[in-house]
Amino acid sequence: MTMSDFWWQRDDLAYVDGDLTFAGRSVQALAESHGTPLYLYNAHRLKDNLERLHGALDARGLRHRVFYAMKSNRFAPLLTYLKTLGRCGIDSCSPGEMNLAQQCGFLPEEISYTGTSLSTSDYGTLARNPGVRLNVDSLTAIRRIGEMCPGRRIGLRINPALGIGYESNELLRYAGERTTKFGIYREQFGDALALARSYGLEIAGIHLHTGCGYLSKQLPAWKTILKGALWFIDRIPDIEYVNVGGGLGIPLVEDDSALDLGEWSGVLAEVFDRRGFEIWVEPGDYIAKDAGVLVLQANSVERKRDTVFVGVDGGFNIHIEPVVYNLPIEPAPCRWRADVDVETVTVAGNINEAMDLIAQNVKLPLPVEGDYVAFLNAGGYGAAMSSNHCMRGQFTEMLLL
Amino acid sequence: MTMSDFWWQRDDLAYVDGDLTFAGRSVQALAESHGTPLYLYNAHRLKDNLERLHGALDARGLRHRVFYAMKSNRFAPLLTYLKTLGRCGIDSCSPGEMNLAQQCGFLPEEISYTGTSLSTSDYGTLARNPGVRLNVDSLTAIRRIGEMCPGRRIGLRINPALGIGYESNELLRYAGERTTKFGIYREQFGDALALARSYGLEIAGIHLHTGCGYLSKQLPAWKTILKGALWFIDRIPDIEYVNVGGGLGIPLVEDDSALDLGEWSGVLAEVFDRRGFEIWVEPGDYIAKDAGVLVLQANSVERKRDTVFVGVDGGFNIHIEPVVYNLPIEPAPCRWRADVDVETVTVAGNINEAMDLIAQNVKLPLPVEGDYVAFLNAGGYGAAMSSNHCMRGQFTEMLLL
Repeated sequence: MTMSDFWWQRDDLAYVDGDLTFAGRSVQALAESHGTPLYLYNAHRLKDNLERLHGALDARGLRHRVFYAMKSNRFAPLLTYLKTLGRCGIDSCSPGEMNLAQQCGFLPEEISYTGTSLSTSDYGTLARNPGVRLNVDSLTAIRRIGEMCPGRRIGLRINPALGIGYESNELLRYAGERTTKFGIYREQFGDALALARSYGLEIAGIHLHTGCGYLSKQLPAWKTILKGALWFIDRIPDIEYVNVGGGLGIPLVEDDSALDLGEWSGVLAEVFDRRGFEIWVEPGDYIAKDAGVLVLQANSVERKRDTVFVGVDGGFNIHIEPVVYNLPIEPAPCRWRADVDVETVTVAGNINEAMDLIAQNVKLPLPVEGDYVAFLNAGGYGAAMSSNHCMRGQFTEMLLL
Repeated sequence: MTMSDFWWQRDDLAYVDGDLTFAGRSVQALAESHGTPLYLYNAHRLKDNLERLHGALDARGLRHRVFYAMKSNRFAPLLTYLKTLGRCGIDSCSPGEMNLAQQCGFLPEEISYTGTSLSTSDYGTLARNPGVRLNVDSLTAIRRIGEMCPGRRIGLRINPALGIGYESNELLRYAGERTTKFGIYREQFGDALALARSYGLEIAGIHLHTGCGYLSKQLPAWKTILKGALWFIDRIPDIEYVNVGGGLGIPLVEDDSALDLGEWSGVLAEVFDRRGFEIWVEPGDYIAKDAGVLVLQANSVERKRDTVFVGVDGGFNIHIEPVVYNLPIEPAPCRWRADVDVETVTVAGNINEAMDLIAQNVKLPLPVEGDYVAFLNAGGYGAAMSSNHCMRGQFTEMLLL
């Protein structure tokens, strides 16, 4: 294995003279200056991801809007940067997120709100923000919105009872054979429309989101899901938009093939065949995930029985995704050690829990104490989900511009 | 089902005239006054749990000390209350925890530190707190402690390669057939002792912690583990203490039988048969878990296909245990509704994720919007692990005294 072997290398993320370079900066130097745990986000990669999405939709002549799902990463400088690009709105899922988006410069009209199990207080906040675009996911929510915001324009989140996600990961399916809490099923849809009408709510669009992390391999399922959505779409006259949610995935390990965006937008164009509505998309991870790395320092390197443990200065509370969602994560040494053998190691965090293993059985040139290791594709669902478990919740985030 | 049917009812947690009463207070009234999500902790129950543990050890004539594992629940009023009782020390696992324990009144000598994958900064903090009792879990840690704190008294965390835990829950095993990051295995033990000696470190004790949530059913395994520890204990002359860790469980569902503490301390007495050392115990959940409830409000009650979803105003980010550790949790309505049927429901949180189901297929008198529901045994690994995911991290904690 040499340092040119890595499947993940790209223009903005590669070894330069043995130094892992991200957004033109030495990751090692940043870690030394700012300490670890350290989340680094490359603004240019965020932009590239966003533009690639626009490009694929434009290429099919699809009128569209993109709402970045901020639950993936709500770091204020990142949100502000996206606002300055002027190429996306924000999808929020709580009053706190909706407020933060506005704090970072987004206008209410640029913000959608896709929540679940809203409280009376939540509805009150939405009523005081009449410009925000609501996606409503239940009969209950239609009634509550109707009561508090009569006449409002809403989107209806539907559940086509079909799911999709990274490598059949059940944890990441938002719809499917198993009944989920999200959206309105076919058998409720007539009641939902009648209820909305009874409050004078205007149904401007349909929203669906059926899973996370899908790649090209899952596009046939994606097509089936969109076709399933037509049943709902066709029942709403003069529908303004169809929001196809997020869930667009990125490769996490070498064997994953990237999502072919041209093919993806082709499916949209084919299924929605020149109907008049706009297509709205709500990517989170697709924008943020591969634009971020998490840098940790090796505190200890020690073999125990059959396992070489590389102990690092961060745990699953800082980046819960590999542990809770069981998604693989790719480690990369910040300085390439050409002089040492590549070994199979397990990277263990600093939390006193058995499950706190960040990467298991991964190949690394064996680090020594003090070495920095970057964990790739950590830009989404990393810092945003962090906790202070064991009071180990401290880390630094940086937007590289 | 009537309200006297519940297996979990006890003196401090029961329905009184249909009102769920905890620590002599109406849970409903507290929720109305302080809002939800609301964590309530009963100080008296904390004390009872602690005294029961002392009692069982005293009954066997075992000299002992108890260190409350604060990672279970570090709410400052709770820690301060425990300090005022004067019946336990604190086990901490990070510099932040060790500092917080002292902020709440504990003296360094009353605090143990059982960490993993310590950073240079962590070792520095330990060096500046020479009174704190260290449990050291690797050769690396022995060397680092030796370098920074020569001559210090330490405990060695060993790994007997035997595990135990709630209902064979693999996630909660800290030792076992599979190699874990914790502790020193037999084959390293000779090296560990030699290394400690080379730095003049005094080995005062042995520490083991092999899993979480064990009940009476697991006591035979517990006995095997203690016997396995003898191999290590016998190799340390004049050992002052053996710290048998935590992991003592409580019943989570009706079918669980409680841990028989008399039997538990009997095993300790039998295996350690009048040897001279003290027994140290590090319970977290056993002290805190059943002393806490989480109160949430039902925001929506709606059937979708085959499932009745009770949507509440808190999600898995507030109480991650049922989702991440796959442990069952018992819901209890705060006001008993004698007039409605008991139904099988799924309690769904307010986080936009498919996995955000707090309790699945549980029986409840069907709530209506606005009803409060208490989730029992939420005093440990609840608030302590909470995150601000989706910016839904707000809640209130109260110590009931």
